[in-house]
Amino acid sequence: MLSIEEYQQHFITYLNKYASSKEPKNLYEPIEYILRLGGKRLRPVLTLMTTDIFEGSYKDALSAALSVEVFHNFSLVHDDIMDGAPLRRGNETVHERWNINTGILSGDAMLIMAYQLFENYDANTFQALAKLFSKTALEVCEGQQYDVDFETRNDVTIPEYLKMIEYKTAVLVGAAMKMGSIVAKASAEDQNNIYEFGKNLGIAFQLQDDYLDAFGDPQTFGKQVGGDIIENKKTFLYLKALEFSNATDKVELQQLFSTNPEDVSNKIITAKQFFEASGSSEATKKAIEDYTNKAFSVLESLNISEDKKELLINFGKSLMNRTV
Amino acid sequence: MLSIEEYQQHFITYLNKYASSKEPKNLYEPIEYILRLGGKRLRPVLTLMTTDIFEGSYKDALSAALSVEVFHNFSLVHDDIMDGAPLRRGNETVHERWNINTGILSGDAMLIMAYQLFENYDANTFQALAKLFSKTALEVCEGQQYDVDFETRNDVTIPEYLKMIEYKTAVLVGAAMKMGSIVAKASAEDQNNIYEFGKNLGIAFQLQDDYLDAFGDPQTFGKQVGGDIIENKKTFLYLKALEFSNATDKVELQQLFSTNPEDVSNKIITAKQFFEASGSSEATKKAIEDYTNKAFSVLESLNISEDKKELLINFGKSLMNRTV
Repeated sequence: MLSIEEYQQHFITYLNKYASSKEPKNLYEPIEYILRLGGKRLRPVLTLMTTDIFEGSYKDALSAALSVEVFHNFSLVHDDIMDGAPLRRGNETVHERWNINTGILSGDAMLIMAYQLFENYDANTFQALAKLFSKTALEVCEGQQYDVDFETRNDVTIPEYLKMIEYKTAVLVGAAMKMGSIVAKASAEDQNNIYEFGKNLGIAFQLQDDYLDAFGDPQTFGKQVGGDIIENKKTFLYLKALEFSNATDKVELQQLFSTNPEDVSNKIITAKQFFEASGSSEATKKAIEDYTNKAFSVLESLNISEDKKELLINFGKSLMNRTV
Repeated sequence: MLSIEEYQQHFITYLNKYASSKEPKNLYEPIEYILRLGGKRLRPVLTLMTTDIFEGSYKDALSAALSVEVFHNFSLVHDDIMDGAPLRRGNETVHERWNINTGILSGDAMLIMAYQLFENYDANTFQALAKLFSKTALEVCEGQQYDVDFETRNDVTIPEYLKMIEYKTAVLVGAAMKMGSIVAKASAEDQNNIYEFGKNLGIAFQLQDDYLDAFGDPQTFGKQVGGDIIENKKTFLYLKALEFSNATDKVELQQLFSTNPEDVSNKIITAKQFFEASGSSEATKKAIEDYTNKAFSVLESLNISEDKKELLINFGKSLMNRTV
């Protein structure tokens, strides 16, 4: 087994060989641009690591790992268009640097290229990877659609919200790990269990993102603290606060989340008071813990050595120990 | 072998069973809408017919045929956004009826669904179909990008133009037929030859579309005659006219194709005069004939009975005998 940093390094070397200057330039340059913008490369590292955990060689998983990363970046390019986002990882988004049509078409090409990366595998592995990929990719689209739908709905339930983040974010983490296990030719049972581990950890991670968006340390949290509150996003914190509030507080909170004040600092303070007083922030911390423990409990049934389980637990813990 | 109309009918029955009401509604309704708008279903019919020609059963090719049709409609949805087109087959385009974000996301889902339709095949067939599909789909994206690039270029050559229509239109016709031959487990040689047949016929068909756009019968040509001239599109007719013109005429023609007059009828008449006087319209007719004959000559090497070759020739001829 290698360290996270070593997997990252091997992945980036492989990525740099892949991104080449093909024609037409206006189609492929934006693809190289977004793939080289960086990011933590979390998903591909999980793929490589999982292959090693199941006694395969991470080298055989590089194409599958790159497919996951290309797909992830495809979804960023198209989501950024839909959200009208000007920045991604501190740089211009593709549609901002080029234009919307370029963003659409280059994104389409990336989705196809993600499938092409499976062509390096034998027919059975190819089919297993592509099937999992298609199922996951379609769920990601569905999750994005639910997210869009929720913006104009006032009756979103907690189970609906959890399904949305599961589809939009968590299934790709599960799939990244399952792909690693497919390449290693792990048993079907192990494949499904590692998927559940990744998926539950992914849900915990997204809930933590919701939590940190309000309560994170501005020094270490990558994005603007309070961003979700400013944008009236109906996160887990907000939905739980509504659930726990009496009729008066509920109306007040809903009103707060329909305003767009010039000076946002008071709005952020008020919202956080609601989250804490209602018990929502505690409930969110509890949910994060529950999903993390659910992920860890799946590990027990895996047919791998104890030190490898330890490794996965440590990885999960380091992921969930971002500064609050 | 069945008749074209019978293949069409079987395909539509299969399509109607496929398009079902899944959740989230806002993602899947636009997909059902565009798939049911109709069209000639030319590509899927070619897939079914080709399977029968190579002694397979068209029934086994229905999923592959549907994949081709779903992909074709995906490309229409995204292209219509890029072109800002309000109408498709006389009805509102998806982004017009819903919105651009819906068009992007539903299109993405369709691209994934096209791959999923190969899951009905065994691993080897799956891989062969998906590989061909990815190569083709990426070429279609490249063709679309070249088309966009050409709009702002004044130095497009005839070979470049031919490559653009080959990628944007013709390769999918070739792939539709090759998929039929893959399902029928035809020899690699037959697979490649039927691909070349479809591709060359596809190029001839697109050149004919260029020709009919200027010289077609308004009564029978589906679109507005002169549409390409109004939009200053650099079609084969235009590029050949430039090639054949002296310096003075060349400048005049280029000037004509930089205007956007209120009354378009004079512009259309003048452009058509250029096309005829320069010899471009004759050269275009010649090129259509050449590509059609190139397609037919490939048939000679196919390992199929003479009456089946006859059938493909008749199909090709009927396709190319649209009213001029």
